[in-house]
Formats: sequence, C-alpha cells, structure tokens
Amino acid sequence: MVTREIVDQLPELQSIQVGLCHLFIKHTSASLSINENADPDVRTDVESHFNRFIPENASYYRHVLEGPDDLPAHIKNITIGSSVVIPIRNGSLNTGTWQGIYLGEHRDHGGSRSIVVTLQGESSQPG
Amino acid sequence: MVTREIVDQLPELQSIQVGLCHLFIKHTSASLSINENADPDVRTDVESHFNRFIPENASYYRHVLEGPDDLPAHIKNITIGSSVVIPIRNGSLNTGTWQGIYLGEHRDHGGSRSIVVTLQGESSQPG
Amino acid sequence: MVTREIVDQLPELQSIQVGLCHLFIKHTSASLSINENADPDVRTDVESHFNRFIPENASYYRHVLEGPDDLPAHIKNITIGSSVVIPIRNGSLNTGTWQGIYLGEHRDHGGSRSIVVTLQGESSQPG
Repeated sequence: MVTREIVDQLPELQSIQVGLCHLFIKHTSASLSINENADPDVRTDVESHFNRFIPENASYYRHVLEGPDDLPAHIKNITIGSSVVIPIRNGSLNTGTWQGIYLGEHRDHGGSRSIVVTLQGESSQPG
Repeated sequence: MVTREIVDQLPELQSIQVGLCHLFIKHTSASLSINENADPDVRTDVESHFNRFIPENASYYRHVLEGPDDLPAHIKNITIGSSVVIPIRNGSLNTGTWQGIYLGEHRDHGGSRSIVVTLQGESSQPG
Repeated sequence: MVTREIVDQLPELQSIQVGLCHLFIKHTSASLSINENADPDVRTDVESHFNRFIPENASYYRHVLEGPDDLPAHIKNITIGSSVVIPIRNGSLNTGTWQGIYLGEHRDHGGSRSIVVTLQGESSQPG
C-alpha cells in the first residue's frame, strides 16, 4: 500500500481541480493496482491467490535462468498491470472510501522500484 | 454492458474531436473492462471463467468475515481493473465494432456503483 | 513485441517534453500490455501460461460457435487489457530498460489489428 507515500510527494495535486493522475512502474516484475486499503489480510490473500494461479516451476516454463520467481513475476505484472489512472477532484485523488494504491512486488528480492507520476488537469486558480 | 447508459450521460462527448474518455469505478469489488458487446453468452462465460479461476472459499483465504464472495471480488477487481481509457474521435468513443464497456459486479449483492468519468480533448469548434 | 513498429509511426513523440502516450486496440480478442522485451522465451512462457489458465473447450463455455479459440481470446483480452498508457519524457517513451509493448494475438487466425494512438503533452518548444 503506497498511497500515502506517493501522495506525499505530489504537492502539485492540491492545485488541480479536475484532472487525472497517471502512475507507471518502470519494471516488468512488479505491478500497480488499486484495491482495498483497510484489512491487511486482503493483501495477503491476494498474494496467495496469484502465487497459486501463477505458479513457480511450471513444467512448460523456458525462462528459468533468472530464478523460479522471475517468470511468474512477469506474468503477474501482465495480469495486474503496469499503470493506474486515478481521477483528481478538488486537489485530491477521487478514490472510493476503501481504495488504495498497491505496489505489487513480485520478485523475492526486487530491490528498489521507480514509479513515474504524470499529473494532468485544470488548476482551481487562474494561472 | 453499460456503454449506452454511460454515453447517454456524456453530451460533452459530442464536442470533442480528438481526446480520451477515462472511466473509473470507485469500488474494490467491481470492475471496468472492454469486451464483446454482441452475444450475451460471452458475458456469462467470462463470469463462469472468473468464478472458477478466482474461487470462493479457498483454504488459504484469511479475509472471510465479509462473506465468501468478498475476497474473490477484490481479486477479480485487481485482475480485470478499476478503469478503462477509450479514445474519442469526432464526438464519439472510437471503439471497435464489437467493443462495449463492461461493469463487472463481483459481489452477490453489490448495491449501487459509482463511476467517475473524465473527458479530455480538443473541441471540434473554436472555443 | 511492437514497440519499434509503433514508435516509428509517431514522429510527433519527439516534440513532446512531458506527456502520455495512450495505445488502444480496437478488438476483443487481442490485447496490449507491457513486459520484458529481451528474452523471447518470456513471451513463449507468458502465452503458455494463459493458454493453460484460460483454457479452450471448458465444459461451461456457451459461446462456441466462433471456434474453440474465440471465447478464451475474449477472456485473455479482459485479463490482460485493451490499452496501455506510457509516460513521455524528452521526446521518448519513458519506459524502463526491459519494458516493451506486447500485442497479444489471442486468435489462431486473427487477421490484421488496429491500434489507436493518442498523444498528450507539452511541447519542448513554444508552439
């Protein structure tokens, strides 16, 4: 859950009345998505699900040199996605009550991850 | 299939020559996607698929207090997505012949759902 | 992998300093995504995965008249997605080192596919 960490680095958000916030992760083995930000069990269960339905060590994998977690990480990235686009309203992300931004780390030892944020919109005050 | 319902509430679309239409659902147990809008059997089959591959009552789910359909609904939302972005051309959504907008309701009793629409683009007439 | 083919047709990219590139595929049985553009085994493995977890000829499919690959193609499109949005920086797609654009062809004989590209952003030179 990286909502707070991201928003804290976007003071420009406050000057946008109506717009969009685009988040893009520059990696092929991590993902961005939006989901329930309250009960941490949801995140655990989501991870359990994808670990089961995008398994390691499938007999038909050829790309195995980077470790058993690498190819599943790519498939998780494709399934979940590399970017999210969130509406902005009155200087804040216009998300629902329970929505937060997930950064899915799909490698066992993924290192640091870079996200590019692009803000678009109309300022609430004349430029 | 909510394409008509949404477009009918967007008269502003008609004044945009080139642009984008962003749809965002403010919920963590429903989803937005784009797919075949003709044969209703497709929607039934899509639902059957996700019910099978994102099952209820998996032994490893911890988040069970909100009912057996809640956690699978979150995973379906993450897998399918919370938003779609559709190009606009000459005042209409520039979708393919068979494409329509799906609202995926993943709870058994989901209640009403809110979608935020953000339009961007250039007017076909001088402002 | 269609990154080069797409970028080569977008000379306008070079004039955008900061912005977004939206790609949208106008079909319900093909998809767009972003993933590893180096080892072609990754693409083979990704295809193997989705063929296994979105199978043909499932007993519960009703939509079978267009062939056994049609309904799975729709589900793959919904799972992977119809569009990608990539940040632009200094006239180029601001992707990570290993990221490329995948066009997923999910029919056995899909024919040609159309992608709509929408560029947004601020020019590096005064208009």
